Amino acid sequence: MGMRLELNTMIVTKNREVRQEENQFLLEKEGYRLYPLDIPIELKKTMTGEASGQAVVKKVIWEGNKTFLTYQLVSLNSTN
Amino acid sequence: MGMRLELNTMIVTKNREVRQEENQFLLEKEGYRLYPLDIPIELKKTMTGEASGQAVVKKVIWEGNKTFLTYQLVSLNSTN
Amino acid sequence: MGMRLELNTMIVTKNREVRQEENQFLLEKEGYRLYPLDIPIELKKTMTGEASGQAVVKKVIWEGNKTFLTYQLVSLNSTN
Amino acid sequence: MGMRLELNTMIVTKNREVRQEENQFLLEKEGYRLYPLDIPIELKKTMTGEASGQAVVKKVIWEGNKTFLTYQLVSLNSTN
Repeated sequence: MGMRLELNTMIVTKNREVRQEENQFLLEKEGYRLYPLDIPIELKKTMTGEASGQAVVKKVIWEGNKTFLTYQLVSLNSTN
Repeated sequence: MGMRLELNTMIVTKNREVRQEENQFLLEKEGYRLYPLDIPIELKKTMTGEASGQAVVKKVIWEGNKTFLTYQLVSLNSTN
Repeated sequence: MGMRLELNTMIVTKNREVRQEENQFLLEKEGYRLYPLDIPIELKKTMTGEASGQAVVKKVIWEGNKTFLTYQLVSLNSTN
Repeated sequence: MGMRLELNTMIVTKNREVRQEENQFLLEKEGYRLYPLDIPIELKKTMTGEASGQAVVKKVIWEGNKTFLTYQLVSLNSTN
């Protein structure tokens, strides 16, 4: 008996992020997911797509088999 | 460069827990600490002491290099 | 896309451990499982049974979606 | 009391990798480090440098407060 979790090395938003402030977003994910905090990681819209930028996770909440992620966008890839 | 964390298999309160409800408590810890959620684990007052009971972690918040733990006491060891 | 793992706070042998030395055992588990190393944790024969003793994980190998655990038995509960 | 570990989202070689096969390498790191297995992650020579390619971790060994990492190089960034 243990706790299932998923180790994630990037943020995949699937366009479900909610803007909280200028460059801060909240994202809800199913299950308990482990993301590195306070470190720039890649931000993607879809799992298989290109990185749309870099973000830093500032806060993680685990509760009721869900993960609530607060991240700040630190850079945007130009896509012209 | 990575994220430092500490894997914990029990809750050590050092009498710093704050009662929120009948059997629910909040505990603040330094650093990012990984506790299993939704699984009974041992509850201790001090690291080297006997278990005072069993608790289930219901919520974990990681932010600003701190861990905020919400747990429910599920059983108390008798110590008479 | 992430890596699934299971956080374990005790060792459940299901009698599948293989003795390597006097008090050292090897145990193979399905999936990637995270156990604390170098810390005494409970050892059980079955998930729901009583702890049969305490063990210290000395080595963990993750490969091919399996976990290979080397642990030392540090104390046995008397069960008379 | 817990187990300290470091969550890593990329491999930083510092030129200490040892080639084992055509595109397979072994790397020894201090401390217990958690890397995602079986998923392409960035490979760098130095922490602050550019990614030199992508690699997939195939095996991780934790023992004696060291991490032994076996990874396969899956793509190389051209740097001309």
